[in-house]
Amino acid sequence: MNHTDKQNPIPGEASRKPIGVFDSGIGGLTVVKRLAITLPNENIIYFGDTARVPYGSKSNSTVIEYSIQNTKFLLQKNIKALVVACNTASSIAIPDLKKMFDIPIIGMIEPGSRMALKKSQSKNIGVIGTRATVGNLAYSKEIKKLNSSAQVVEKPCPLFVPLAEEGWIKHQATFEIAEEYLNELREIGIDTLVLGCTHYPILAEVIQEVIGSKVELIDSGVASSEVIKTELEKLDLLSDSKTSGVQEYYVSDIPAKFKEVAELFLGREIEHVHKVDLEVLISEY
Amino acid sequence: MNHTDKQNPIPGEASRKPIGVFDSGIGGLTVVKRLAITLPNENIIYFGDTARVPYGSKSNSTVIEYSIQNTKFLLQKNIKALVVACNTASSIAIPDLKKMFDIPIIGMIEPGSRMALKKSQSKNIGVIGTRATVGNLAYSKEIKKLNSSAQVVEKPCPLFVPLAEEGWIKHQATFEIAEEYLNELREIGIDTLVLGCTHYPILAEVIQEVIGSKVELIDSGVASSEVIKTELEKLDLLSDSKTSGVQEYYVSDIPAKFKEVAELFLGREIEHVHKVDLEVLISEY
Repeated sequence: MNHTDKQNPIPGEASRKPIGVFDSGIGGLTVVKRLAITLPNENIIYFGDTARVPYGSKSNSTVIEYSIQNTKFLLQKNIKALVVACNTASSIAIPDLKKMFDIPIIGMIEPGSRMALKKSQSKNIGVIGTRATVGNLAYSKEIKKLNSSAQVVEKPCPLFVPLAEEGWIKHQATFEIAEEYLNELREIGIDTLVLGCTHYPILAEVIQEVIGSKVELIDSGVASSEVIKTELEKLDLLSDSKTSGVQEYYVSDIPAKFKEVAELFLGREIEHVHKVDLEVLISEY
Repeated sequence: MNHTDKQNPIPGEASRKPIGVFDSGIGGLTVVKRLAITLPNENIIYFGDTARVPYGSKSNSTVIEYSIQNTKFLLQKNIKALVVACNTASSIAIPDLKKMFDIPIIGMIEPGSRMALKKSQSKNIGVIGTRATVGNLAYSKEIKKLNSSAQVVEKPCPLFVPLAEEGWIKHQATFEIAEEYLNELREIGIDTLVLGCTHYPILAEVIQEVIGSKVELIDSGVASSEVIKTELEKLDLLSDSKTSGVQEYYVSDIPAKFKEVAELFLGREIEHVHKVDLEVLISEY
């Protein structure tokens, strides 16, 4: 018993560590929402790099550098696993993060791609995202790596992020913009549509109505939450806590309307928001 | 004669130096467009800090630091005057820039405010801008400093920037969004509306139609071009060239669709675009 106690002095200590989640901004809060549904007893620490958003327009080396800083910051908070809740960072930085850090690291692209292939009958899959994500064809490459006969069409929808942040989830203008963006994908006859941006689940209702009820929407936040649950189970790192998990939020800037938008994305009140000094982040991590 | 030659070895040399213009991104190209109309024989050098856009969500000290770097970069290109074609940098960094650099420096806020007061009969003035600009009340403060009895109402229109960048200048969705944003200002009964973001002149037609033909729109790019013309005249620094000026463009990143959007903003083909390495910008300026 003594020997076991030394290895694990407090029973369940390692498993009660929080899950870390980072994003370039606030979009990743839709992933936290899903994670808290899938793993309600887990503690979650979120870091949103709101001072340096967006990552999509930055060079690969910058995105990798920022992702490493964000991960080091979360590791210092003693996380047991990491969710990269940012499609840009997922597509660029995950190989480097996996090389550098010895914890389970889950992105958006692979879980979302696997779920799309699982749900799709026709293997005609659509992907919508920011101009940067779509420009990199990150989902197309991943889906075709997993199933070379799949057909993937990607379409950038740049107005969806500001529409989600405005909270115009049922506005007539949102329907018209969705019509304009999704018309082409509807005509191609996809049966599955990946929401390739963590902001987009906010507009899921409009997107579903415009693309048609027969098309299955894939929320990468749902997909990645299931993957991390399986990973933690395998490693015996699921929390044994019987009470609801606690969420803590760190951001590098608190822009105007932050609380309002964050709560829309998270689906509930946001508490425990701390501002991280960017200079400290850069120099210490 | 010799004495004069020594002071000014090539006649008109100082006056033939370019005018420098910087912005956090590409919005400032609408200012370049106006500047080239007002001063067709002047050479212009533009720097768009596309890698670090937007400035609006950054701290004051960061905006000042970036503005100093951008100005030093342009000074190295031998500019004779500077236009800060970014509302955020104009409202925050101009006092520091004026202290540090001994050339004429013109922003957006003061010229736009003066022109609004000049055009307005009722002194009921509206201002639209990004959430950051409106949050700072930069135009309200400037207008009230110039005329304490003026009434100013500011309204953020966050979707106008992405709509302008999408080029949806006559889209039904743009009209509906403008209706939503401008309804309140129309009901208040303003007679003058300041376009407090350098992207907004792209949407001037929709904005004019929605706000009504009796409301005068103020383009700060037009206002600042007139101010810089007057300044250069006073200092005897207007170019004596009889041929059309040349424009050169530097950006810290070339994002997707850059050329298309830049040409929409500039109103003509864009040539001579150079990418500036951000690390060089930070370390050398």
